[in-house]
Amino acid sequence: MTSWIRYRSGSANVGFGRLENGRIHVHQGDLFDAPQPTGEVLSEAEVTKLAPCQPSKIVALWNNFHALAAKLEKAVPSHPLFLIKPSTSVCGTGEALRRPPSYGGKIVYEGELGIVIGKRCSNVAPGDAADHIFGYTCVNDVTAAELLNEDPNFAQWTRAKGFDTFGVIGPAIVPGFDWRAAHVRTTLDGVERQHYPLADMVFAPEQIVSLVSRDLTLLPGDVIACGTSIGVGSIKDGASVAVNIEGIGTLSNTLAK
Amino acid sequence: MTSWIRYRSGSANVGFGRLENGRIHVHQGDLFDAPQPTGEVLSEAEVTKLAPCQPSKIVALWNNFHALAAKLEKAVPSHPLFLIKPSTSVCGTGEALRRPPSYGGKIVYEGELGIVIGKRCSNVAPGDAADHIFGYTCVNDVTAAELLNEDPNFAQWTRAKGFDTFGVIGPAIVPGFDWRAAHVRTTLDGVERQHYPLADMVFAPEQIVSLVSRDLTLLPGDVIACGTSIGVGSIKDGASVAVNIEGIGTLSNTLAK
Repeated sequence: MTSWIRYRSGSANVGFGRLENGRIHVHQGDLFDAPQPTGEVLSEAEVTKLAPCQPSKIVALWNNFHALAAKLEKAVPSHPLFLIKPSTSVCGTGEALRRPPSYGGKIVYEGELGIVIGKRCSNVAPGDAADHIFGYTCVNDVTAAELLNEDPNFAQWTRAKGFDTFGVIGPAIVPGFDWRAAHVRTTLDGVERQHYPLADMVFAPEQIVSLVSRDLTLLPGDVIACGTSIGVGSIKDGASVAVNIEGIGTLSNTLAK
Repeated sequence: MTSWIRYRSGSANVGFGRLENGRIHVHQGDLFDAPQPTGEVLSEAEVTKLAPCQPSKIVALWNNFHALAAKLEKAVPSHPLFLIKPSTSVCGTGEALRRPPSYGGKIVYEGELGIVIGKRCSNVAPGDAADHIFGYTCVNDVTAAELLNEDPNFAQWTRAKGFDTFGVIGPAIVPGFDWRAAHVRTTLDGVERQHYPLADMVFAPEQIVSLVSRDLTLLPGDVIACGTSIGVGSIKDGASVAVNIEGIGTLSNTLAK
């Protein structure tokens, strides 16, 4: 299966390429518009991975798994429920998660599947949605949990989830990934905390793209985080979270002390 | 007072410049990084105005006026309450507002003051916030009101306010604008519906920039909509809304039939 990464090599050189057996086939141009191989091949070991794309926004779903809805005793929604995490929240694998200087409370991980949009779209018919999905990635939808209900009149989803480094995506984008039999597995300091089947989604990726594209225009590189399931928990300062989806890879980050 | 606009002249030529007495002094480069005059001068009448900048996001505040908080019987917040309207929602003066094909319900106007960020910033001290404000504009924060509370468990702020053309900004950006004595006046088909003093804000612009920048990194061209006050109402298909702030100008749009 093809896998695309973005990376930094040397001190400042940012590039992208197709990863195969530990070797990066460097490409140029636009990942979402017929990128061309340069002929250069790098070793995976000699680069630092970055977030695999630069979304203009991350659309993050809430309450999209039957198991979590049942645990929270919430009805499943009739339309995807979402908020936006800004472009400035994006963080790649291996980068430090940073506690906001103004916030001393609980910081929570949520392992998720991410859809990466390949083509600008709005009002996409369900049958056409697959054409607009470039591939899939892992997401850690990090949340400053104590801000969420700080104000009794307004749930602060954007504020709680929009901090720098709270939109963790990667390590790669895998086109054609078959999510139907896959699981999301999240570990905290190596101990498994989430292990749930993507088949339990309320809205599946093609439905999500179709329905969300009625509300927002989606741009190439935008990421839709499909929501999480049971096992969410808090990350202590210095702890490491890894979100793994077999066939995509492992997204690992440590909350800076 | 200096006023900056973006425009289209001819069929496709997009530019920006300083507007003075009906004449546009065309500039080149980056509006937020020492733009240079080209020497060319256009007549205001010969161009089509566009949104005056291209924000990566609009941060839209809720419950930021004492009068509206009192009317809604809500306590004023202790920190700005906000959502994000995506870059794809942005719309300029004169452009048609478009009803989402999937939505037949009430569409609501909210006349507001908009802060235009001039420099990338996070965790800005209150005393430094003014340095990061490029200027001010008018905002019509359009909302598909019936979506907001469609789901009992999740207020759909982003969905209700994020549609294409629902982030209306313009007609110009005015650096150094003194909002303290200014009013927002919104008319619907020429009839005044809002007329409220900006002095009634709970959080003033410099406080907003400082506090929001603790939560999100703000980028040059990002717009913060300061929230609305009393007089919000619905726009029938074919009706025109104009948001006026004396010293900035009038932002006029018609909801397409």
